[in-house]
Amino acid sequence: MSELKKKAVLLVSGGLDSATVLAMAKADGYECYALSFDYGQKHSAELDAAKNVAAAFAVAQHQTLHLDFNQFGGSALTDDSIDVPIAQDEGINEGIPVTYVPARNTIFLSMALAWAEVLQADDIFIGVNAVDYSGYPDCRPEFIQAYENMANLATKVGVEGHHLHIHTPLIDMSKSQIIQAGMALGVDYSITVSCYTADAQGKACGECDSCRLRRAGFEAAGVADPTLYK
Amino acid sequence: MSELKKKAVLLVSGGLDSATVLAMAKADGYECYALSFDYGQKHSAELDAAKNVAAAFAVAQHQTLHLDFNQFGGSALTDDSIDVPIAQDEGINEGIPVTYVPARNTIFLSMALAWAEVLQADDIFIGVNAVDYSGYPDCRPEFIQAYENMANLATKVGVEGHHLHIHTPLIDMSKSQIIQAGMALGVDYSITVSCYTADAQGKACGECDSCRLRRAGFEAAGVADPTLYK
Repeated sequence: MSELKKKAVLLVSGGLDSATVLAMAKADGYECYALSFDYGQKHSAELDAAKNVAAAFAVAQHQTLHLDFNQFGGSALTDDSIDVPIAQDEGINEGIPVTYVPARNTIFLSMALAWAEVLQADDIFIGVNAVDYSGYPDCRPEFIQAYENMANLATKVGVEGHHLHIHTPLIDMSKSQIIQAGMALGVDYSITVSCYTADAQGKACGECDSCRLRRAGFEAAGVADPTLYK
Repeated sequence: MSELKKKAVLLVSGGLDSATVLAMAKADGYECYALSFDYGQKHSAELDAAKNVAAAFAVAQHQTLHLDFNQFGGSALTDDSIDVPIAQDEGINEGIPVTYVPARNTIFLSMALAWAEVLQADDIFIGVNAVDYSGYPDCRPEFIQAYENMANLATKVGVEGHHLHIHTPLIDMSKSQIIQAGMALGVDYSITVSCYTADAQGKACGECDSCRLRRAGFEAAGVADPTLYK
């Protein structure tokens, strides 16, 4: 039966959002190919979590690609000379944060597009979210639409009459809605890591923007936070 | 004076086309940042040529990024299980050739976009060519336009009111026009390598599609072919 399943390439970071997307794609009947990136993150717990998430959902294949983002510098997430900021008030800071990695989703989607073309998959899933998007320009719906347009001109898939679709099932959901959807699909969030500065065991700081969004999400969803904190 | 120059990121492969683009951008007064990729090409002569081209034009910086294209497979240029075809008639074969690397220009431009954002450069140059494009979908003008639209939504540059421009000065030129333009700007084509199967010294096969287009270009331009053949 598995030959009849539609193939999809999914960007899996090891975080809460992409784990939920993977659960959704599996529930929709896709044969899932998970793609992760080793791009000079300051910690590797995220990549360990990606492996665990991919294994938990028994994906058809999981690949981790190495990317030299830190060769360019310019982000607190990859450049050792920039500190990850700790939020100092209740709200998320306005504007584009220093944790923004230049062109990250553009690059991730482009690698997913290459794999999709080789697999002859017409579907790519990415867990971007416009509600909690923390000011990253490449999480906006208009970016995703423009990317899909470009991708259909870039590839053999587009030339040969298929339509490549970028799925963003979380784009209009709040963090608590994402968590509720994932819980209904059996996601074990204790194996996911969202913290920008997690330690080697995946324990979270509880203080960075990503930790605060995640914790507030569990509270709003009325679900006990399974996150391991330092 | 160099602080006043506009910065540009250029994709430099070591081939004839990108060497010409580099000469054009220099002539237009740009401070040039050259970007090359080690993506599992079957030969490294191309990367040596890229270094020589970047040095010949005294670029501000030259970076070579490693990409794991061959992890996906699917192209004769990177996959050892697929042979590079030798053209068997006078014309270039129709359709998309097996030498197509999945999503290559999409990925190359995305890495250039990341570097451009870090450099705060509003200009990216790529030597794509629609006339002699050999059937690659990601060399068409409509692809480049869609890419530029996407890039302006993807990045801080776009958000902050700059406009990022993808320059394709060769897009409507024939190979002989490219060669004539480059000769007028002093390009030494003997240091460039175009062949899909060049040996370690950069010597060309003379038989692949890329060699045939290049040789025909020198003939049509009325310029002695400086290419070293095996």
